[in-house]
Amino acid sequence: MTKPESRKSGVAAMSSTSKCATSAPATAQVNDGAVEPGCPDHSAHIKANVMKQTSRESMNWRNCGVDCEVYDDGTNTFFWRAHTVTVLFILTCALVYVTLLEETPQDTAYNTKRGIVASILVFLCFGVTQAKDGPFTRPHPAYWRFWLCVSVVYELFLIFILFQTVHDGRQFMKYIDPKLGVPLPERDYGGNCLMYDPGNTTDPFHNIWDKIDGFVPAHFLGWYIKTLVIRDWWMCMIISVMFEFLEYSLEHQLPNFSECWWDHWIMDVLVCNGLGIYCGMKTLGWLSMKPYQWQGLWNIPTYKGKIKRIAFQFTPYSWVKFEWKPASNLRRWLAVLGIIFMFLLAELNTFYLKFVLWMPPEHYLVLLRLVFFVNVGGVAMREIYDFMDDPKFHRKLGQQAWLVAAITVTEFLIVVKYDPNTIMLPIPFFITQCWFLGILLIFTWTLWRFFFRDITLRYKETRRRKQESPSDRDRSLGNGNPSTPSGRSKLNGSSETVRQRKS
Amino acid sequence: MTKPESRKSGVAAMSSTSKCATSAPATAQVNDGAVEPGCPDHSAHIKANVMKQTSRESMNWRNCGVDCEVYDDGTNTFFWRAHTVTVLFILTCALVYVTLLEETPQDTAYNTKRGIVASILVFLCFGVTQAKDGPFTRPHPAYWRFWLCVSVVYELFLIFILFQTVHDGRQFMKYIDPKLGVPLPERDYGGNCLMYDPGNTTDPFHNIWDKIDGFVPAHFLGWYIKTLVIRDWWMCMIISVMFEFLEYSLEHQLPNFSECWWDHWIMDVLVCNGLGIYCGMKTLGWLSMKPYQWQGLWNIPTYKGKIKRIAFQFTPYSWVKFEWKPASNLRRWLAVLGIIFMFLLAELNTFYLKFVLWMPPEHYLVLLRLVFFVNVGGVAMREIYDFMDDPKFHRKLGQQAWLVAAITVTEFLIVVKYDPNTIMLPIPFFITQCWFLGILLIFTWTLWRFFFRDITLRYKETRRRKQESPSDRDRSLGNGNPSTPSGRSKLNGSSETVRQRKS
Repeated sequence: MTKPESRKSGVAAMSSTSKCATSAPATAQVNDGAVEPGCPDHSAHIKANVMKQTSRESMNWRNCGVDCEVYDDGTNTFFWRAHTVTVLFILTCALVYVTLLEETPQDTAYNTKRGIVASILVFLCFGVTQAKDGPFTRPHPAYWRFWLCVSVVYELFLIFILFQTVHDGRQFMKYIDPKLGVPLPERDYGGNCLMYDPGNTTDPFHNIWDKIDGFVPAHFLGWYIKTLVIRDWWMCMIISVMFEFLEYSLEHQLPNFSECWWDHWIMDVLVCNGLGIYCGMKTLGWLSMKPYQWQGLWNIPTYKGKIKRIAFQFTPYSWVKFEWKPASNLRRWLAVLGIIFMFLLAELNTFYLKFVLWMPPEHYLVLLRLVFFVNVGGVAMREIYDFMDDPKFHRKLGQQAWLVAAITVTEFLIVVKYDPNTIMLPIPFFITQCWFLGILLIFTWTLWRFFFRDITLRYKETRRRKQESPSDRDRSLGNGNPSTPSGRSKLNGSSETVRQRKS
Repeated sequence: MTKPESRKSGVAAMSSTSKCATSAPATAQVNDGAVEPGCPDHSAHIKANVMKQTSRESMNWRNCGVDCEVYDDGTNTFFWRAHTVTVLFILTCALVYVTLLEETPQDTAYNTKRGIVASILVFLCFGVTQAKDGPFTRPHPAYWRFWLCVSVVYELFLIFILFQTVHDGRQFMKYIDPKLGVPLPERDYGGNCLMYDPGNTTDPFHNIWDKIDGFVPAHFLGWYIKTLVIRDWWMCMIISVMFEFLEYSLEHQLPNFSECWWDHWIMDVLVCNGLGIYCGMKTLGWLSMKPYQWQGLWNIPTYKGKIKRIAFQFTPYSWVKFEWKPASNLRRWLAVLGIIFMFLLAELNTFYLKFVLWMPPEHYLVLLRLVFFVNVGGVAMREIYDFMDDPKFHRKLGQQAWLVAAITVTEFLIVVKYDPNTIMLPIPFFITQCWFLGILLIFTWTLWRFFFRDITLRYKETRRRKQESPSDRDRSLGNGNPSTPSGRSKLNGSSETVRQRKS
């Protein structure tokens, strides 16, 4: 028990105090040596060595996960400070100026708006300097603290909207942009699906050209980023295909889900998403191979090196390869199913939310929401991954993951509350059958994989044992734990394996 | 450089992972041994010993500051978990119930209020489970996270009020309590100050009995808590006396500051405050001597022991004695002056804020604000103390201290904005003279203590050196650093001493 915990704590110290580099590696290294319970004298010897070679160089290398190492020379400049007191001072000056030296307008509505905006800004000031750091530190921890605070503000805004009547909620959007709060025009999504349209003599391929618009690079970019977030080829492909199935299933509710078959499968899944996922996987490969060496800008002699260092500031501090291993045990399998479910729900919310809140698709708020999700999604996914991998008793779901889950649920509740009629439109019988079949398949596989297969394997193991001679059996009893069949631990990747991966 | 930093990181790991006790002490102890740079072999030997006696018992003792030790058997029950997922699940269920199953009222004003309250509750849900932990862990870290979130909400409320016009701001209080938003009645604070009033034949001491009301125990309790917060007899006495001076100086602005001389000095300073400070100091003495031993409730055999353990849950986890040492260097001197200034400002805000926002003194919001300050003040003061003592380059002012400072400033700005006339009432000439004299004295003392005395000492040291024989001088050069005069480091308590105190 001591071993993985202490190692874990070393890793935790490393990631949390990554700004304070000179002290952390010493702790981590000493931990790694100290908690080897089998050989105390040997580990003491190791530590004595560690202490003798306390050169900066050797202490700055850290082991940061499965197969990566980070070198950090521990440069901590002005740039990295939290500037808590400075921010407080500037905030005070700004407040003095705005509230005492400027004259307050007599317009109550304007003042209310201004008061709310000021409250949000003060909250951001507090959060950006003081909120809890997440797993990411590049380009700057304050960047991720900022997005965390934005998540909080967005979630509170959603809660407020959720508690209004449908009419008030839609009209409330007028406070943000006076152009909002008007019903969306009906759009015609009809037309034929011929790739080669003989009826149109001037350009028979016009259907294809029509589809190649701004959404093609958007789809590509979106899936490139989603791949960086999920970091797994299979999960990306499943979500990409599943979403097209959802579009098929829900086109009776949202007309803009109805597309031509080749738009679904060729344009979306193969070309846009596929290319995005491919480029994402290439980038992931580069990120997992890239050396993680951080030197202070002033310690780099050449200008080229300095520029490269500045550019690398926008790459991760270290790299964790995600290995979701959905089939390793029931908990992970259910967790991966849950992640896919939430991911698809968040994607659907994009379309349903703008539909129920009367947001035109080209409105900047729709784009801002996507930019927001790009920034928080990566943190949330990493936190969920850490949560699943964490053998600690006290593991906490990360703050950003918690918020993203709450936001997704709240958005969905808004959709249900604001337009129950659309949501409740009966699903065509054929589609219901398909979904029922799919869910049944998953359920059956789950049952077989995590319940029946184990029983079968255990039964086979018992029979094999019985056939062995009693002397053999005694030997196998002496070697390992006889109650766990070797087949199971090998196939499932037991929790022991998961723990060892962390060290 | 390695030594204090690593020790510090050990202490930090200890305080931050106090919930995860089994791993933290091992880290801390190994650190303590590992970073002794002078004698690597000896420390390796120590570590080997530590590892050989890896009994739970020996690892659970931690060194937690100057002169205290904490014993923790590392029991981590259900009670200590953060329950992030559980809270998220309950929150989701509550939102589904309230927004989908209950019918939404058609009253916009009511819904707005409900939406804001719901947003605040969701924020508290998030904050209580996910906010950054502060220095305190008893009775439960969630308790202090709760007050942190309340500070955020209160600060945002103040900012909102600050941005309204005076009329709107006062009327806004009606949303909280419909009875508010009406001008306060004028009160008569006149009368004579005779302790023995011969004019009143039935009870010549009536003036004294009149003063003994609910505010006597309130003053006593307030100063008892303030002593626990400040943890220093001298600072408490100075603040207590200074506040009476402030009451004298400002009685032309707020009539309820005008009291009889014996009410100021005998009733307030001597009886109420003095007794509060005395009891506070006794409690501080007990807390600093008390053994800090934490055992899991189920590990205690007797019922009496269990009840004692439950009661002790409401005492601190460990104890840090505050040694403000204002005269040790200029930075600390200015910091202590700043703390006293902010403390007095927060005290004055209590009276001015209710005056400008038309709050009757007996209103529950006034009491709530005091309860709030009692809870956040202790955390903030501890964070300020840690900030002043922290030798790290990256030291951050604690989140609660940041917020308390922001709240005090915002409250003061509201007072200035809402009633500039009262604030700007000219101070009587005699009082101005007194304050000018006081400030001049402090300024002169500062100049002498931190600038001229050093020069004098250095001059004396140089002259003494010159008078010594050259051989003596060589010896003294070999012994220590000759550029630092011994007199200074002895008197000022150099930063080295401060660092050693932390270990």
